Amino acid sequence: MELIFLGTGSGVPSKERNVSSLALTLLQEQNSIWLFDCGESTQHQILRTSIKPRKINKVFITHLHGDHLFGLPGLLSSRSFQGGNDLLTIYGPTGIKEYVETSLQISGTHLTYPLQFIELSEGKLFEDDTFKVYCKKLHHGISSYGFRIEEKDKPGELLVSKLKEKGISPGPLYQQIKEQETTILPNGQSIARSDFLGPDKKGRTISILGDTRRTGTNTEFVLDSDVLVHEATFNRENEDLADQYFHSTTVQAATLAKDSSVRQLVLTHISSRYQKQDSQDLVREAQSIFSNTKLAHDFFVMDIPTKK
Amino acid sequence: MELIFLGTGSGVPSKERNVSSLALTLLQEQNSIWLFDCGESTQHQILRTSIKPRKINKVFITHLHGDHLFGLPGLLSSRSFQGGNDLLTIYGPTGIKEYVETSLQISGTHLTYPLQFIELSEGKLFEDDTFKVYCKKLHHGISSYGFRIEEKDKPGELLVSKLKEKGISPGPLYQQIKEQETTILPNGQSIARSDFLGPDKKGRTISILGDTRRTGTNTEFVLDSDVLVHEATFNRENEDLADQYFHSTTVQAATLAKDSSVRQLVLTHISSRYQKQDSQDLVREAQSIFSNTKLAHDFFVMDIPTKK
Repeated sequence: MELIFLGTGSGVPSKERNVSSLALTLLQEQNSIWLFDCGESTQHQILRTSIKPRKINKVFITHLHGDHLFGLPGLLSSRSFQGGNDLLTIYGPTGIKEYVETSLQISGTHLTYPLQFIELSEGKLFEDDTFKVYCKKLHHGISSYGFRIEEKDKPGELLVSKLKEKGISPGPLYQQIKEQETTILPNGQSIARSDFLGPDKKGRTISILGDTRRTGTNTEFVLDSDVLVHEATFNRENEDLADQYFHSTTVQAATLAKDSSVRQLVLTHISSRYQKQDSQDLVREAQSIFSNTKLAHDFFVMDIPTKK
Repeated sequence: MELIFLGTGSGVPSKERNVSSLALTLLQEQNSIWLFDCGESTQHQILRTSIKPRKINKVFITHLHGDHLFGLPGLLSSRSFQGGNDLLTIYGPTGIKEYVETSLQISGTHLTYPLQFIELSEGKLFEDDTFKVYCKKLHHGISSYGFRIEEKDKPGELLVSKLKEKGISPGPLYQQIKEQETTILPNGQSIARSDFLGPDKKGRTISILGDTRRTGTNTEFVLDSDVLVHEATFNRENEDLADQYFHSTTVQAATLAKDSSVRQLVLTHISSRYQKQDSQDLVREAQSIFSNTKLAHDFFVMDIPTKK
C-alpha cells in the first residue's frame, strides 16, 4: 500500500506542480488502485509512473472544481483505449454523472468497460472484504468531501510452536485451524482457533480530505489515522486568504493532525504562489505544531507499511 | 506569423506526443493567437512556450473527439485565472457549446471574460480586416472540419523614387498618397495612388484540416496554400487501417499536397504506434510524393514569412 502523489498544486497547473490527483495503490491488498481526484493531465502524470490505468477500479472525486475533475474524461477514455474491461466506480458529489456522461457522449467516446456512479453522502460509503470507507462533508465553496479508508484487522499469525507442543504437526490441518473457528483433530479432540492465533494484525487507516477551510469538526473523522493527507493552500501568514477562499494553511492542517493523534501528515494542494525554495518554510511551519509532517511534491511516493 | 505545434499525437497522449493542438500566432498581424484544437494538457504544453493564454482570442475545434477537446475547459479556466478579460470566440461543431457550458457550470467555473460560440458550417466562417477564414466538412467518424485561413493582400510599397522624380519630397504627404485613392498636391495637381504603389503584397494562406479519411474532394479547398497541415495517423502500408478508422496515411496527405500545389506540407496527428525512430520513414514516404514535407513534433515552430 502506497500513496503516489500525481498532482500537488492548486487551481492552475504550474511547471512544478500539476493540479490535484492522488493514487492509493492496493496491489497486494486487492490488485487494484484507487484514485482520489483527477485534475487535467492526470493521465499524463500516470505515464511517468508504474500505474496501469486498467488497474484503477475506483475514482473518488472530493469536489467538482475543475482542478480536481477535468482530467477524468481523458483518463476514462485512455483506460478504454488501453484495454480496460473491468467495472470502474466513480464516487463524487451530485453532478459528477452529468459531467462525465456529457463529456463522453458529446465526444463520441464509447468505453470498453462498465461505469458506475455513486453520489457521495456522509457516513459509510462502502465496505468490502478488506476496507471500510467513510465520507464526511468539509467546508469549501462548493460541496467538498473527505474520505477515511479503514483497512480491516486481519487474524494474527498461527502460533506454530504452541501447535507443535500440542503434538500437531505442520500440514493442511494448519490452514483449517486458521480458517475455522473450531477444528476437530483426527484424534477427535476439538480445538479453538482463538487459542492458537497471535494478536490481530491491525489494519491501517488513511484519511484523505478534499479542499476545505478549517472546520474544527474533523478531529473525530480523521482520529488515529496512520496518514492524513490535508490541503495546505496557504502559509501561516495568509490565514485570512485561506479563510476567504475556503482553504487551509499549513498550521491549520498541522493543528488538526495534532488534535486527532494521526501518525503522519502530508500536506498537498500548494498554491502556485509558493516556489520550490519556499517548501522548507511551509513544512517547518507545520512541523512547529506537528513534527511528523511531509510536504508532497509531484511523484512523491509514500509507502504505508503493514503494522506489526 | 508562426505555427506552434502543441500536440502532434493521436488518440491518447504518449511521453513523446501530446494529443492535438496547434497555435497560429498572429502577434504582428493582430496581436492575437488562434488555437486549433485543444486536447487535454494543452495548457500544460503552453506553459513550456511563449504563448500567453490571454492572447488567445479564437479557438477552432475541428471535431469533438476527446483528444481534440478535453483540454478546453481547463484552458478557459486558466485564461480567466491569469487575468484574461477579452472576448474569446470558440468555433466548433454542434455540441461544443453544450460541452463547454456543462463543464464550466458543473465545476462552478466563472470566467472573467465573455465567451462566444459559433457553430461550424461550410463556407466563409468570418472575415475581418486581415483575414478570411473558410470552413469545409471532411470525412471522419463524426463531423470534422478543415479551415482555410487567407490573409488579405496588402497594398504594395510606395514608389519613393518615382515620387521624388515627380518632385514630391518625403513628408506627411507620402502617408496620404498611400492611404487615399487620389491625393491633391499643394500645386493643385491630382495624383492617383495606383500610379505610385508597387505590386500588392500577397497575403499568406494556411490550411489546417481536422481528422479525415482521404476524400479526393479537398484539392480546391486547400489550393495554393503556403502551408497545409494534414493528419497522417498511419504510414503507407496501413492504408486499410486508415480507411477503417477514418484517418489518412502519409502518402494520402502528400498526394493532396501535390495535387493542390501547396508550398509546404506539415504532417501531424501521428499514431503512438510510431516511435521516434520511425519518424524518418514516415517523412520519407510523404516526400517521395511531395518533397516539401515536414513531420511535426511537439513544440515544433514553423515561421511563415511574409511574401515578397
